[in-house]
Amino acid sequence: MDLATALGLGIGLVIVMVVMIMDGGSPMELFAHPSAILLIFGGSIAATTITTSLETVKSLPKVIASAFSVLKMDAYASVELLVTLAEKARKDGLLSLEEESKKIEDEFLQKGLMMVVDGLDPVQIRSVMETNIEQVRAQRRVGYSFFNTAGGFAPTFGIIGTVMGLISVLKQLDNPSMLAKSIAAAFLATLWGLLSANLLYLPLGGKLKAKSDEESHIRYMQMEGLLAIQAGENPRIVRDKLSSYLPPRPAQKAAAGTEVKAQTAPNESEG
Amino acid sequence: MDLATALGLGIGLVIVMVVMIMDGGSPMELFAHPSAILLIFGGSIAATTITTSLETVKSLPKVIASAFSVLKMDAYASVELLVTLAEKARKDGLLSLEEESKKIEDEFLQKGLMMVVDGLDPVQIRSVMETNIEQVRAQRRVGYSFFNTAGGFAPTFGIIGTVMGLISVLKQLDNPSMLAKSIAAAFLATLWGLLSANLLYLPLGGKLKAKSDEESHIRYMQMEGLLAIQAGENPRIVRDKLSSYLPPRPAQKAAAGTEVKAQTAPNESEG
Amino acid sequence: MDLATALGLGIGLVIVMVVMIMDGGSPMELFAHPSAILLIFGGSIAATTITTSLETVKSLPKVIASAFSVLKMDAYASVELLVTLAEKARKDGLLSLEEESKKIEDEFLQKGLMMVVDGLDPVQIRSVMETNIEQVRAQRRVGYSFFNTAGGFAPTFGIIGTVMGLISVLKQLDNPSMLAKSIAAAFLATLWGLLSANLLYLPLGGKLKAKSDEESHIRYMQMEGLLAIQAGENPRIVRDKLSSYLPPRPAQKAAAGTEVKAQTAPNESEG
Amino acid sequence: MDLATALGLGIGLVIVMVVMIMDGGSPMELFAHPSAILLIFGGSIAATTITTSLETVKSLPKVIASAFSVLKMDAYASVELLVTLAEKARKDGLLSLEEESKKIEDEFLQKGLMMVVDGLDPVQIRSVMETNIEQVRAQRRVGYSFFNTAGGFAPTFGIIGTVMGLISVLKQLDNPSMLAKSIAAAFLATLWGLLSANLLYLPLGGKLKAKSDEESHIRYMQMEGLLAIQAGENPRIVRDKLSSYLPPRPAQKAAAGTEVKAQTAPNESEG
Amino acid sequence: MDLATALGLGIGLVIVMVVMIMDGGSPMELFAHPSAILLIFGGSIAATTITTSLETVKSLPKVIASAFSVLKMDAYASVELLVTLAEKARKDGLLSLEEESKKIEDEFLQKGLMMVVDGLDPVQIRSVMETNIEQVRAQRRVGYSFFNTAGGFAPTFGIIGTVMGLISVLKQLDNPSMLAKSIAAAFLATLWGLLSANLLYLPLGGKLKAKSDEESHIRYMQMEGLLAIQAGENPRIVRDKLSSYLPPRPAQKAAAGTEVKAQTAPNESEG
Repeated sequence: MDLATALGLGIGLVIVMVVMIMDGGSPMELFAHPSAILLIFGGSIAATTITTSLETVKSLPKVIASAFSVLKMDAYASVELLVTLAEKARKDGLLSLEEESKKIEDEFLQKGLMMVVDGLDPVQIRSVMETNIEQVRAQRRVGYSFFNTAGGFAPTFGIIGTVMGLISVLKQLDNPSMLAKSIAAAFLATLWGLLSANLLYLPLGGKLKAKSDEESHIRYMQMEGLLAIQAGENPRIVRDKLSSYLPPRPAQKAAAGTEVKAQTAPNESEG
Repeated sequence: MDLATALGLGIGLVIVMVVMIMDGGSPMELFAHPSAILLIFGGSIAATTITTSLETVKSLPKVIASAFSVLKMDAYASVELLVTLAEKARKDGLLSLEEESKKIEDEFLQKGLMMVVDGLDPVQIRSVMETNIEQVRAQRRVGYSFFNTAGGFAPTFGIIGTVMGLISVLKQLDNPSMLAKSIAAAFLATLWGLLSANLLYLPLGGKLKAKSDEESHIRYMQMEGLLAIQAGENPRIVRDKLSSYLPPRPAQKAAAGTEVKAQTAPNESEG
Repeated sequence: MDLATALGLGIGLVIVMVVMIMDGGSPMELFAHPSAILLIFGGSIAATTITTSLETVKSLPKVIASAFSVLKMDAYASVELLVTLAEKARKDGLLSLEEESKKIEDEFLQKGLMMVVDGLDPVQIRSVMETNIEQVRAQRRVGYSFFNTAGGFAPTFGIIGTVMGLISVLKQLDNPSMLAKSIAAAFLATLWGLLSANLLYLPLGGKLKAKSDEESHIRYMQMEGLLAIQAGENPRIVRDKLSSYLPPRPAQKAAAGTEVKAQTAPNESEG
Repeated sequence: MDLATALGLGIGLVIVMVVMIMDGGSPMELFAHPSAILLIFGGSIAATTITTSLETVKSLPKVIASAFSVLKMDAYASVELLVTLAEKARKDGLLSLEEESKKIEDEFLQKGLMMVVDGLDPVQIRSVMETNIEQVRAQRRVGYSFFNTAGGFAPTFGIIGTVMGLISVLKQLDNPSMLAKSIAAAFLATLWGLLSANLLYLPLGGKLKAKSDEESHIRYMQMEGLLAIQAGENPRIVRDKLSSYLPPRPAQKAAAGTEVKAQTAPNESEG
Repeated sequence: MDLATALGLGIGLVIVMVVMIMDGGSPMELFAHPSAILLIFGGSIAATTITTSLETVKSLPKVIASAFSVLKMDAYASVELLVTLAEKARKDGLLSLEEESKKIEDEFLQKGLMMVVDGLDPVQIRSVMETNIEQVRAQRRVGYSFFNTAGGFAPTFGIIGTVMGLISVLKQLDNPSMLAKSIAAAFLATLWGLLSANLLYLPLGGKLKAKSDEESHIRYMQMEGLLAIQAGENPRIVRDKLSSYLPPRPAQKAAAGTEVKAQTAPNESEG
């Protein structure tokens, strides 16, 4: 569970409701005119759908879920695993890693290690792994771009809704009792446009991009580790090299480090 | 048929009409003042035409059509074809591919394969193919930039129309019965400016850019494949290399893969 | 004559006038308050002048003229010329091109060919020619940036004019008959700011940038051609290489190709 | 104490208060409607929290403190230290620097010098140190991005607050005595949104980015210095090289230079 | 004296005043409410100061002065000097340039020539000179960024001032005679915010950036010249190479070229 996403969204919604009550209103008023909600969410998602594919739209529930869950990769456990592999490679030779590779659950690391064991040219391995990392990053970008694009469309659909509302208001000028209520309804569209963009679309897009950047960063670190193992580098140097990719491990986490269940076979990661 | 484009546009328009009815109006009101429509579409297209050439304007119907149709290139079939060619090259030599090249319908792949068969320098082949990919991408950019530029101009022409309307309103202050109707008419220009930009121009521009990016991506993959064949690389490595350019093939598609009619001669693609 | 520029600007102006008449006004009203026109054009040009030099301001008439005329360089004729030179170089040696170079009217091509004939180091030739292309592009950028910058300032000066107008309106609140007219006059400044930016400055800036990009693109193609000639490459490869820089020649143009008067000596261009 | 941050913020707040008094009001009015303050700060921080992690939120007090304190690194003292080390390395050999490295308090410099003494490959040292610099820079970016993102959200939450306020105003149209006060309260949200973004979030983000850029710049200079020492370069060249990274030292500072307590062992820095 | 800066600023201010008079007002009204001026200039400079250092604020008068004066470097005279040096180096050897270097007043050129005479490695010379050029450019950027940042803050402080004014207006609704005057005063803040950004901050920032870019461009040309001299290149090639960095010299300037007092010793520059 990614607490920042859940807390930020929850607290943001609570604040909006509290402010509505402090202003002498009720949060229920937000839902008084369903046409505003329909226009803002329908319009922004329809417009964004045009820019992408139905596959992307279908994958959105999974993408949204990933914004609320923590990244499965543990960078610090990866360093431990790679240093252990470097030690084993030094002691028993590169070929001894074939057996180890079968225990690795992470497909990217496993395929990379297999290429190392197979003795492929390092330039080739780097090229294949980089293309793979960038391919995954491009796929992630399709996902979070949906939210950023929708966050760009939503406020405009809010203004569209308000202008549409104002136009219909101007036809009722002879009915002053309805006038104020209609103007308020018109502004509701602007409100939904701004709220959906600023509490939902843009923050989710930002979180998903941050997660994707972190993921690529760890992947590049893993790639450098595998190439260092292939080059037969000293395990101490491998640790130095990989650690330079990461912020110093926070104290409490480091202490609990040996019990961490990582994506790698745990009995290997502390070898 | 690119369903995302058609569905997104259709649903977006339906939502706008439904909201107008929910607001107590009629979608027909959108067309009550043809001057607004003339100004927004005429103005934004005229301004965009200045930035480009008449050739670009003439090619627009074709460009719009391409936003509604699916990309003709099948990336997965390309991988199969290139792996098959790699196998044949390994078995019978590079020259044996000359015959194969005649069966390839895609001009880019065919010309590339011919250069490989002719034994040109790989650096030269890469340079010619890259220039060609970038040239096609630049041509595509001229197309989708038209929509992005028009999408930038349209809301401003909406505001121009509204300001023009308000100025003419202010001359009729002594006729209150006309006043409200004229103000509503003035706002209609803003509405058309925002709607045309956000449901038409910008989403179409986004879709066309996404298609062009996907096309270049596949072209680069094909280029790497041809160069790997020329270098005499192991077909298994060629497959690994090319697969790293693509997301894992979705299950149902993969199952139907052998029947896919691709841009390549089908009886070769499963060789 | 660049028809896109002329037609776009002309049609855009006609549409604005037609819309004014449809709205029940007259295009002459645009000129009712010369102070708005003075502020928008004077202000945006004065502010832009600060960011640049008097030389740039003096060169503007020439720069504007170039937006209305077609690019003098014919890319397809250049390819023909360079292929002819490659053939001659293969047959009679590089030195035989000295005579040809005198017939070339385009200074860039002539100087480049002279460096090839003089046998300079290819790395040096590339460096000198690239610096030259980038230098011309930087000069062009100074020109079109003027329009883009002015297009950024103009709407703001429009708002400045409207705010100034509204402030003076507020002093006349006791004279209601003048009020509406004054407010209309105030909005005129916004109108001129938006119209000048969106029909004049920004489209012209966009066109000039597109022309400059096309020019550099052709120059880079010519440079690659000259370097290929120096390297003694096969004329067929030279043609392939240069063609990859250009979109496929449109049919009717290709048919008339041999009669085109290009910037090169015509009796040489079909060799 | 970073005087620019403190003075800028202090003077900015004083000016806002003075202007409020000059306008015939009182600075206390800013706090008349706590709902505006709650919405702007709560909303912008909640939305920004979604884009990041709870670790980042927890580190904010430290990040804010760093915007008010001066950078601990003294670039000029670093140059002196590195030149001294280069002289010692020339005289007594690289291994003689091991002892020196223990006196260096700055961890980055110390670890770098240890790698030099250990005789690692320069390409490896550069790679590890660059990765480390970029890792620290990425960490800093997470910090200052929080403020830039919050500065982007705050004005929109201001508008959200104003729209919410106006909607509740429109329900009270029958109570004119409350009307004006409610509209004023609604605008207060816009005011807080703009003030918090323009006096707090964006300036702090800008300052933190400038500090991070300066820090990386000095780190790169230190890295080049260590690599020059390893390459056994002439101390005079080392000084020239490192000085080209820095603006000419201001006179008064240069005079006091020998007494500066830097992050390096002072008795070594003037060797 | 940089005429474009002075004329642009002067004409811009005159136009604003003329328009105010044409609108039936007086330029003095701009200064009717000092609180607006205090808020806009005080606020934007205070906010910008937070993002930078007190050293930058102290250097502003000098930075502003440089926007009004012409660049001291004469690029054409530099070419002449470097060609003369190339000729002397060819005739009398590189060491003969030591004497020449003492006559050069420009520190950058002198230090560069000394490195050439000392026989340093060209890669080293390039690295030191590039770092130096980029360091100067970074220093210039700190200066012109101040104006661009202030130009970004000023309109927002204008809106802050207007909102503050409107809030205080709403408290005086029972005093209609004051109302209009107060609203006008509130809009004055927007006016000052827009005017200061669009006639002062942003144009000055643009001019300073253009000057800095030109300066770096000439510095890179000088660096290439010195490296060509060290490589013992033909003076004619050196002239070709350096000329490709510059636009063709305007006729009248070229005629007067030999009398130009450049930053180099004049008796050498025509050698």
